[in-house]
Amino acid sequence: MSKPLILVSNDDGITSKGIRVLVSAMQKLGEVVVVAPDSPQSGMGHAITIGETLRLTEEETFQGIKAYKSSGTPADCVKLAKHYILKDRSPDLIVSGINHGSNTSISVLYSGTMSAAIEGALEGYPSIGFSLCDYSSDAEFSHVEEWVEKIANQVLQNGIPKGIALNVNFPPKQKENIKGIKVCRQAEAKWQEEFDERVDPNGRRYFWLAGNFVNFDKGEDNDEWAIANNYIAIVPCQYDLTAHHAISQMNKNWNWDELK
Amino acid sequence: MSKPLILVSNDDGITSKGIRVLVSAMQKLGEVVVVAPDSPQSGMGHAITIGETLRLTEEETFQGIKAYKSSGTPADCVKLAKHYILKDRSPDLIVSGINHGSNTSISVLYSGTMSAAIEGALEGYPSIGFSLCDYSSDAEFSHVEEWVEKIANQVLQNGIPKGIALNVNFPPKQKENIKGIKVCRQAEAKWQEEFDERVDPNGRRYFWLAGNFVNFDKGEDNDEWAIANNYIAIVPCQYDLTAHHAISQMNKNWNWDELK
Repeated sequence: MSKPLILVSNDDGITSKGIRVLVSAMQKLGEVVVVAPDSPQSGMGHAITIGETLRLTEEETFQGIKAYKSSGTPADCVKLAKHYILKDRSPDLIVSGINHGSNTSISVLYSGTMSAAIEGALEGYPSIGFSLCDYSSDAEFSHVEEWVEKIANQVLQNGIPKGIALNVNFPPKQKENIKGIKVCRQAEAKWQEEFDERVDPNGRRYFWLAGNFVNFDKGEDNDEWAIANNYIAIVPCQYDLTAHHAISQMNKNWNWDELK
Repeated sequence: MSKPLILVSNDDGITSKGIRVLVSAMQKLGEVVVVAPDSPQSGMGHAITIGETLRLTEEETFQGIKAYKSSGTPADCVKLAKHYILKDRSPDLIVSGINHGSNTSISVLYSGTMSAAIEGALEGYPSIGFSLCDYSSDAEFSHVEEWVEKIANQVLQNGIPKGIALNVNFPPKQKENIKGIKVCRQAEAKWQEEFDERVDPNGRRYFWLAGNFVNFDKGEDNDEWAIANNYIAIVPCQYDLTAHHAISQMNKNWNWDELK
């Protein structure tokens, strides 16, 4: 049997620490191809490059591995990999990360890491986004490499439901070992934003987005709970945004006579 | 009773045709405040500006209306409006658009228009993204203004379930009048991408993302069907991406002994 083909991308850029750990884990499972942004793309959500040109350059970043860097977003990277680099070959798995920082709860919407995985799911491939819930500049990734390999291997062996991308978040390195895995839902939380207003040397006003993450969720079946309790959180994510329950509600509550 | 406060944003930029039509319709319903990008932001998905500074400038684009342009994304605009411009005042409605081009089906993921609406829903406000399914440069918006007003008025009168943003798509202007409204689900479809490879004057390779929209959905209860049949499509969208049905499936199918 030929080795599985694994496409690796991320949003922190091709030179980041997290993608090196991810590539190292994936090399144990199959043939790896890397297509990643040439610079950090955090907070890019599911952005794609429409009005501008895209660059793509082969890169010797990883020994013995085909790797490319692109000027585009994480979603662009997956599209370039699928339609230009791999062409007739289909990846058996698409992985993205390991993101330097959390993508739990509502952060999944802003996450470039997860947009690469969701783009993979859209194309019909088993896809996983990995993130480490540690924002410190010297964040330790070593304790998750073995877990990354195990989780990816499970997906290769048992698959995931079609159209689903897994959002995997790891707790930061602690004295105690990680307790295990919780397959769970996205916690109900949000960012409480503030804008830090400053004046530039030319007297013009500018802002930095700042804010705190606020968790409203009291449940124990969500990703925030899992991370807080030293478990790995896996949320299966879908790209159908339809709130199906709201369709009948709207058909009942709205005044349809006024809408003619 | 004081007039409702309506926040208007978009992704085509503050000078676009679509936002003028939207502002004109909203003026009939309440007090309007505009915060929109200073340049087109199509395809920005739910991107936010993290690593760069944000600019915000008051703008005299709309007569008698408080308006601001920002260097940020549509999601940034909603955050700036909420946390900096409106501060203690809460909008009764957040509207975004009218996007020049379709945001049906899977395009909702890439849509800056809808990211502004979803950002509004996240903050707990009734929110609507409006799009016109017409990509032609001289697209006609006049046939939808009255509908925009009616739909926004319904939301002001009857509300929408909390945390839901409406994705409203209008058919292009045709000989026959629009038939009515369908509250429906997001169609199963995707973009079949191709990359147009070129060489710049310096001999360096670059790409344009190109592609065709392919609809796999045979149903009649989805947004693509509605538009194709000259109905307005309204899809209630949620920001919980959890594929709840997949949680039990994964707990059953995975080999959990290997994951210790």
